[in-house]
Amino acid sequence: MDNRKMVDDITSMDEDFAKWYTDIVKKAELVGYTSVKGCMVIRPYGYAIWENMQRILDGMFKETGHENVCMPMFIPESLLNKEKDHVEGFAPEVAWVTHGGSEKLEERLCVRPTSETLFCEHYSQIVHSYRDLPKLYNQWVSVVRWEKTTRPFLRSREFLWQEGHTIHETAQQAIEETEKMLGIYARFCEEVLAMPVIKGKKTESDKFAGAVSTYAIEALMHDGKALQAGTSHYFGDGFARAFDITFSDRQNKKSYPHQTSWGVSTRLIGGIIMTHGDDNGLALPPAVAPIQAVIIPIAVHKGNVIEKARQLEQQLKNIVRVKVDDSDNSPGWKFAQYEMKGVPVRIELGPRDIENNQCVIVTRHNREKTVVSLDDVATVVQQKLKEVHDGLYSKALENRNRRTYDCTTTDQMIDEMTKKGDGFIRAMWCGSEECEAAVKEKTGAGSRCIPFDQVQISDKCVCCGKPAKTMVIWGKAY
Amino acid sequence: MDNRKMVDDITSMDEDFAKWYTDIVKKAELVGYTSVKGCMVIRPYGYAIWENMQRILDGMFKETGHENVCMPMFIPESLLNKEKDHVEGFAPEVAWVTHGGSEKLEERLCVRPTSETLFCEHYSQIVHSYRDLPKLYNQWVSVVRWEKTTRPFLRSREFLWQEGHTIHETAQQAIEETEKMLGIYARFCEEVLAMPVIKGKKTESDKFAGAVSTYAIEALMHDGKALQAGTSHYFGDGFARAFDITFSDRQNKKSYPHQTSWGVSTRLIGGIIMTHGDDNGLALPPAVAPIQAVIIPIAVHKGNVIEKARQLEQQLKNIVRVKVDDSDNSPGWKFAQYEMKGVPVRIELGPRDIENNQCVIVTRHNREKTVVSLDDVATVVQQKLKEVHDGLYSKALENRNRRTYDCTTTDQMIDEMTKKGDGFIRAMWCGSEECEAAVKEKTGAGSRCIPFDQVQISDKCVCCGKPAKTMVIWGKAY
Repeated sequence: MDNRKMVDDITSMDEDFAKWYTDIVKKAELVGYTSVKGCMVIRPYGYAIWENMQRILDGMFKETGHENVCMPMFIPESLLNKEKDHVEGFAPEVAWVTHGGSEKLEERLCVRPTSETLFCEHYSQIVHSYRDLPKLYNQWVSVVRWEKTTRPFLRSREFLWQEGHTIHETAQQAIEETEKMLGIYARFCEEVLAMPVIKGKKTESDKFAGAVSTYAIEALMHDGKALQAGTSHYFGDGFARAFDITFSDRQNKKSYPHQTSWGVSTRLIGGIIMTHGDDNGLALPPAVAPIQAVIIPIAVHKGNVIEKARQLEQQLKNIVRVKVDDSDNSPGWKFAQYEMKGVPVRIELGPRDIENNQCVIVTRHNREKTVVSLDDVATVVQQKLKEVHDGLYSKALENRNRRTYDCTTTDQMIDEMTKKGDGFIRAMWCGSEECEAAVKEKTGAGSRCIPFDQVQISDKCVCCGKPAKTMVIWGKAY
Repeated sequence: MDNRKMVDDITSMDEDFAKWYTDIVKKAELVGYTSVKGCMVIRPYGYAIWENMQRILDGMFKETGHENVCMPMFIPESLLNKEKDHVEGFAPEVAWVTHGGSEKLEERLCVRPTSETLFCEHYSQIVHSYRDLPKLYNQWVSVVRWEKTTRPFLRSREFLWQEGHTIHETAQQAIEETEKMLGIYARFCEEVLAMPVIKGKKTESDKFAGAVSTYAIEALMHDGKALQAGTSHYFGDGFARAFDITFSDRQNKKSYPHQTSWGVSTRLIGGIIMTHGDDNGLALPPAVAPIQAVIIPIAVHKGNVIEKARQLEQQLKNIVRVKVDDSDNSPGWKFAQYEMKGVPVRIELGPRDIENNQCVIVTRHNREKTVVSLDDVATVVQQKLKEVHDGLYSKALENRNRRTYDCTTTDQMIDEMTKKGDGFIRAMWCGSEECEAAVKEKTGAGSRCIPFDQVQISDKCVCCGKPAKTMVIWGKAY
């Protein structure tokens, strides 16, 4: 493995992880900055990653019976105010529209921070009988939250996301939906983004505003900080009661339906960067990479190299997303460029290769070189893409395993993080909000989730020493 | 042809076209109303039409080298103000954000009514050399214009659209792009939406705010009113000068690049409704119909009808978007329901059909019935979809031809519209803004465009009688 650092102007991740991150999003041309703080331009290369994610997720949603809709972006203040917990959670961070043209609006409108209230208004118009249920909706839109501290993808004032909203006859059906969608997110992260995640339930203090329970998938980034990668909420009939959504049930009685919502966002692009990237730049999971294989002709002035490269492109283009770079830049510059852009597979093709009816395939994540007969390229490229996916996943899982610490005291938590760096801490909890807050206060690590896969670390709360109820994953988070 | 009116609760189009339109959008479940005037919910059936349009158009854009990006939704007031004509055109109809959470913003932000200013800010950061040009960008977003009078799809305060934005080395390249995209829109309307359009140039008074020239495609609706179905603008270097976007040209001199923008929106769904719909409801062009063929089992309690219907669905599902309706409703109710929803092809399958190894195929636009062997269904359904497309197109073209009047005086314009109803009027124009305004004032018909395909109706201006410069299409517009 060749570890020479080809891209000299990216800050090393071990030196300054935050600056490394900013370097990557700029130099890989994922985003541009604008004059509105926290609002970014998603550039073609960044947007193409999102389009691939959208296409795959949208297919998974439709396969499970969901339909896309589109709600307006504005929520009247009175509508936002209808559900008490919800408005308390979101009102402090919404953008308010007060004027249309030169006229002051009679009621101010917020730009949706999330769309539960809009879906509820719509449900109240269209749900009358159990025959109208369930409604399994999703929308792909952008939302706005007026955050104080912002970072591209991770925490921006406007971000792109999908928000699923469903409404059901019974609590059980809604709970099943909540869990099903969490499962889909986990599968998407692991099988598409090569990002291992832990599925679990959020504690009471960390629930979505208005939810009965919130489930989340949590991923561990390269630097040992946690990223909440997706959430799925069960609302019970709280929203239905607040918005007076009722239906005639099978006994012909008036009944309140049960709701869910669930979402993932462009934040996942931040997750990809911080899970797989290295000092040479991005490393993209093949399933969402805009370019899966780049062909670099070597010594283009000699013989028929460019022609052969184009032939190879033709041969591959129905199988993978492929591009030839026949620009004037040097092969070395191109190698560094496409490594920085995280292209999973590089194919080098020079005059001597052509003479020998071969090419050289290099995989981004480990720089392993394979000499391949031109007759086998199509098959080998597909194998290599699979290898890259698996390699990225293993590396991420290994990082998470190395950075997962089982602790029985808060002192031990601090000690582990000091010695080995931030990570996921598995420790028992009595269930009290006081202990949860105290752990965060003492260690800096908050509760990430109560994982579905419980392991008994001890029988006492890591904080108060009283009998423990559950194991919690703790960590510092983005 | 069976003309019985199956859907009794749709207002007849000849009685009240506006009410007919509203009935359709509600009863075909395209939109839902919200508590914010002019902001609609696009329901699954309406959104699925938009998704099909998006997928096809997006393919056409990418084939011609365009890349998708995503700009923020907010424009600071100072940025909107940079190009004089542009701000004058849009400032009166934008929604203003003045507060983030509880804090008043230092500078108010408008919700984008269109994104030229945002693209310009971005170009000024990324365009330095002729090597950086052209940039061929597009984005799929929603925009907001605070209209006084609103109607679903046709004129809503928030609407979904795509906006293409490109920047070029030379004026000629930008003009070619403007024309190329107009051509793509025309092809899309005719070949995908079965909607005949006229390509032309807007008059000076009707140009986009900030454009050197605006091109448009104009369609004629069933009621004889015109719909501007898409526009393409050439900006020259006006925006570049206002936003100080410069590049080193091939002579290494500082130069201003030339820009374009172009867009179509969910307005096209309104166009589809008013071009193809009838008193039985929607009639959807097959290429964008969410359901292209619906299978209706007859006498479901007898024999294996449902099983056979499901088999037929399996047989067709990789070829067309097909659905079986095996609900409890009567066949008659289902016929009316899917006619209202504009499903192009209905397949009826009953016990006697199965005995005879056949089914009955009915096309939506003309209710023609064809008995088809079950062995040939796949082929015939595809033929029928083609027939529906062609039939819808011919009917729309025939309507436009019947309603196109060549006039040499404004009195004749009034006379034709009084006798035969609204339509496109072809009449000559001297080129003065006074005459253009006077024609509108007298006849109610404004200039729609100066068509590329010019026909010499006379040699005098329809208004002042002085020598004419061009033929103009006039009409009342949505």
